[in-house]
Amino acid sequence: MAKPKNKGVSPSRQEDFPAWFQAVVREGEVAELAHVRGSMVIRPWGYAIWELMQAELDRQIKRSGAANAYFPLFIPLSYIEGEAKHVEGFAKEMAVVTHHRLEEDPDDPGHLRPGGKLTEPLIVRPTSETIIGKSFAKWINSYRDLPLMVNQWANVVRWEMRPRVLLRTTEFLWQEGHTAFASEEEARANAEQMLEVYREFADSFLAMPVLTGEKPEGERFPGAVQTLSIEAMMQDGKALQAGTSHYLGQSFAEAAEITFLDREGERGLVHTASWGVSTRLLGALIMSHSDDVGLRLPPTVAPQQVVIVPIPRGDEGPAVLEGAEELAREIGDLAFDGVPVRVSADLRDREPPDKRWEWTRKGVPLVLELGPRDLKEGVVALRRRDAGDAKPESLERSRVATAIPALLAEIQDFYRGGAAERLSSRTRDDIQGFDEFREWFDTDPADAGAGGFLRAPWSEAPESGQLLEELKVTVRCLPFDQSLAPDSRCVLTGKPAVTEAVFAKAY
Amino acid sequence: MAKPKNKGVSPSRQEDFPAWFQAVVREGEVAELAHVRGSMVIRPWGYAIWELMQAELDRQIKRSGAANAYFPLFIPLSYIEGEAKHVEGFAKEMAVVTHHRLEEDPDDPGHLRPGGKLTEPLIVRPTSETIIGKSFAKWINSYRDLPLMVNQWANVVRWEMRPRVLLRTTEFLWQEGHTAFASEEEARANAEQMLEVYREFADSFLAMPVLTGEKPEGERFPGAVQTLSIEAMMQDGKALQAGTSHYLGQSFAEAAEITFLDREGERGLVHTASWGVSTRLLGALIMSHSDDVGLRLPPTVAPQQVVIVPIPRGDEGPAVLEGAEELAREIGDLAFDGVPVRVSADLRDREPPDKRWEWTRKGVPLVLELGPRDLKEGVVALRRRDAGDAKPESLERSRVATAIPALLAEIQDFYRGGAAERLSSRTRDDIQGFDEFREWFDTDPADAGAGGFLRAPWSEAPESGQLLEELKVTVRCLPFDQSLAPDSRCVLTGKPAVTEAVFAKAY
Repeated sequence: MAKPKNKGVSPSRQEDFPAWFQAVVREGEVAELAHVRGSMVIRPWGYAIWELMQAELDRQIKRSGAANAYFPLFIPLSYIEGEAKHVEGFAKEMAVVTHHRLEEDPDDPGHLRPGGKLTEPLIVRPTSETIIGKSFAKWINSYRDLPLMVNQWANVVRWEMRPRVLLRTTEFLWQEGHTAFASEEEARANAEQMLEVYREFADSFLAMPVLTGEKPEGERFPGAVQTLSIEAMMQDGKALQAGTSHYLGQSFAEAAEITFLDREGERGLVHTASWGVSTRLLGALIMSHSDDVGLRLPPTVAPQQVVIVPIPRGDEGPAVLEGAEELAREIGDLAFDGVPVRVSADLRDREPPDKRWEWTRKGVPLVLELGPRDLKEGVVALRRRDAGDAKPESLERSRVATAIPALLAEIQDFYRGGAAERLSSRTRDDIQGFDEFREWFDTDPADAGAGGFLRAPWSEAPESGQLLEELKVTVRCLPFDQSLAPDSRCVLTGKPAVTEAVFAKAY
Repeated sequence: MAKPKNKGVSPSRQEDFPAWFQAVVREGEVAELAHVRGSMVIRPWGYAIWELMQAELDRQIKRSGAANAYFPLFIPLSYIEGEAKHVEGFAKEMAVVTHHRLEEDPDDPGHLRPGGKLTEPLIVRPTSETIIGKSFAKWINSYRDLPLMVNQWANVVRWEMRPRVLLRTTEFLWQEGHTAFASEEEARANAEQMLEVYREFADSFLAMPVLTGEKPEGERFPGAVQTLSIEAMMQDGKALQAGTSHYLGQSFAEAAEITFLDREGERGLVHTASWGVSTRLLGALIMSHSDDVGLRLPPTVAPQQVVIVPIPRGDEGPAVLEGAEELAREIGDLAFDGVPVRVSADLRDREPPDKRWEWTRKGVPLVLELGPRDLKEGVVALRRRDAGDAKPESLERSRVATAIPALLAEIQDFYRGGAAERLSSRTRDDIQGFDEFREWFDTDPADAGAGGFLRAPWSEAPESGQLLEELKVTVRCLPFDQSLAPDSRCVLTGKPAVTEAVFAKAY
């Protein structure tokens, strides 16, 4: 049954989760695939969410001691080759610049063709380990130059054959931290510290509790000694890797020749780490919290936390508009999460129901409506985005100052609570053998209600990898909070288990 | 005569201005050309200056009503062709992506070569008018969708044959604002408003007063109806265009088919404007304020406004270090320009004179030194970066709270005053004919003390262009504050003048 136009996105989560996601992203004006296959426009509303995430993460990154810097977009082919020699698994789907000019095409008048062929092709950075490594080699001379911790906010490109908006795009935005230390211990501690920054950020700021752990060998960043990740559970039970942190050992230092003189005057290689999160987080946020009406945003990342929609009628029109502006000023003087409440009065030349619907599908936590009668009675009509399609409540004007910050806190907790409940209730840890394993993951991909994570003993045996591949299930991580009982058997192969693992289908 | 190592950069401004600039950029750890010809690494210290500029400009841009968004890095060749048809002058030096994969080279084992040829080459954006225009066409339907004002912070690429760090690099960072309006009047007003934002930003925030005006026809952005600019004067008397703003008329709207239904239900083309500033501003800042010792930063853009260098000696070592930290805490509680003073105690394992010299060549406005005797006497040794190589002053600890903000304000004013004085004293407006004109600009390019701007009547006659080209002088702008006397004659050709112009050699 088709829904009335202004009641929500179509299809619903239960009808078709992937299509629902695309509809929420589109109707919420977050982003769109456009212009170039696999490329994405992040629209103002989506970009404002990203800016709020960036600002908070940037504070945490700086607090960790890292400083921002900027490195070239283009990487010489020779750098990639140097890396490729010892990084076999390195993805080779990259954009390659081969020319530096456009010229008239003599064979096709009125058209342009590439000219000025480069002697060495340039790669558009898929990540910056190689180029930053070579700069580190230049900047680091002695132990006094260590630790060196830089972070870059940048665009990166990895060619995608099957692009999906926000989740898998050829170009995306991210931050990449690159750090160098005198000792393995410090480098490992940095990788762990930044994962904890990501965990805390996802949990409190995005209201999205995550699982933390180490990736199994086959899932590590190519060349890394250890890869740590945070894993979030989407509403369809699938996992989304929301951030990674790597201890890279000395192999990248060796490739880029990053050496230092230690206190004893001996020259040695540094130990490096790297860590990053990307605009994928926008996808995770949406698939964590949104509903069949559209986007839902935790107040911490809502570009507007409160929008006031005036309903001017007849002679009272000007008074209502003025009242809306006054209310916005009053609310803007309040604080939530340590900063002024982000509020605006929507005075645009549109119908009030259209405005209300726009802010609803864009996920604004609180929409306040103000009409002539409300003005007279000293109340506002309050619509909570976390209350689904419920009727508005009436809020007395005199209570606004105390009510608004408390309501925003409630909504933040409500979204976080829902995500936490899902992560816990849909993670099975009681599954014994392969038949039950297969059954748990044998779900209709469009059905958002089925499946989830599975926590079980694992042997790491090669044949378990084949079984997982057949089922399209992956090991998300070896969780930090291991609770492997003695003599446990692998859930996949029945062989002796060496670790506890978390299994899931994943984005 | 070679200078002692720790007394300044070499050469001096008088010896060789361009080489001095490069030395300041290098020794100040601002940026470096590296890895790929024409590409630049912006080092942490330089990037922190850029971040301060960004934050302030971003506030002003948002205040103007524009919202940030992000558009693809890659532009299809067909978009550029569409534009090129009516934009003859469009620069064609662009990076072209022709392949999306690296593969093993069978003819050269162990090496990689481009694979996966694209059916349509992609251009790395030199600017985003075309791609943003096509998005606007999709988003704008009626007058209710106007004005539409977006801004993008991004990297852009314009192939440079003769790269110069910060001034002319193949890749640079910038912001580009793109706006669409129902009427010409509004679009022109937006272009003017944003130029005023740039003027005020340069003047107060960068302590760099600028000239404002309109570009003559030949210097306009290709396709623009009107190009406005701010022009700063460097210490060698040359002009640096520090920001531009364009009224684009309806030609870009026509190319991208950006139409809207007006209030009367008629479909028409929007009027567009665009405006931008780039990391070139870092170059302008340096060439405006720095001296033969190194970088000098106005406090507003100094990542550290105050650095405390402890001089721990003997038994008093721990007490001195503690005193330095305490002093940093105390100063961090003070405010300058509405935000907490950016201060740190440099506790690194290095010699105090090396530390002092590092912060001096990096342009920190105030360096405070604290030794055992200072601690005992309740004073600190104060070194002002604006005081050249003068001996430190002694500042009583009890006066720190009042003295520091006042000193920062003084330094800000001092730098601004110097730049204003230069702009005014080295702009001639009394030159009568071509011989005097030629003489004013006939300077040794290495001599920072000669030449400057010239303000004079101009005929706009074609032959004046040839004369200018021979002298390597350009019309910087037709200043807004015109004061053309009746019956004035062109300073170049003697023909009747139609406008007053400002002439200069330029970066």
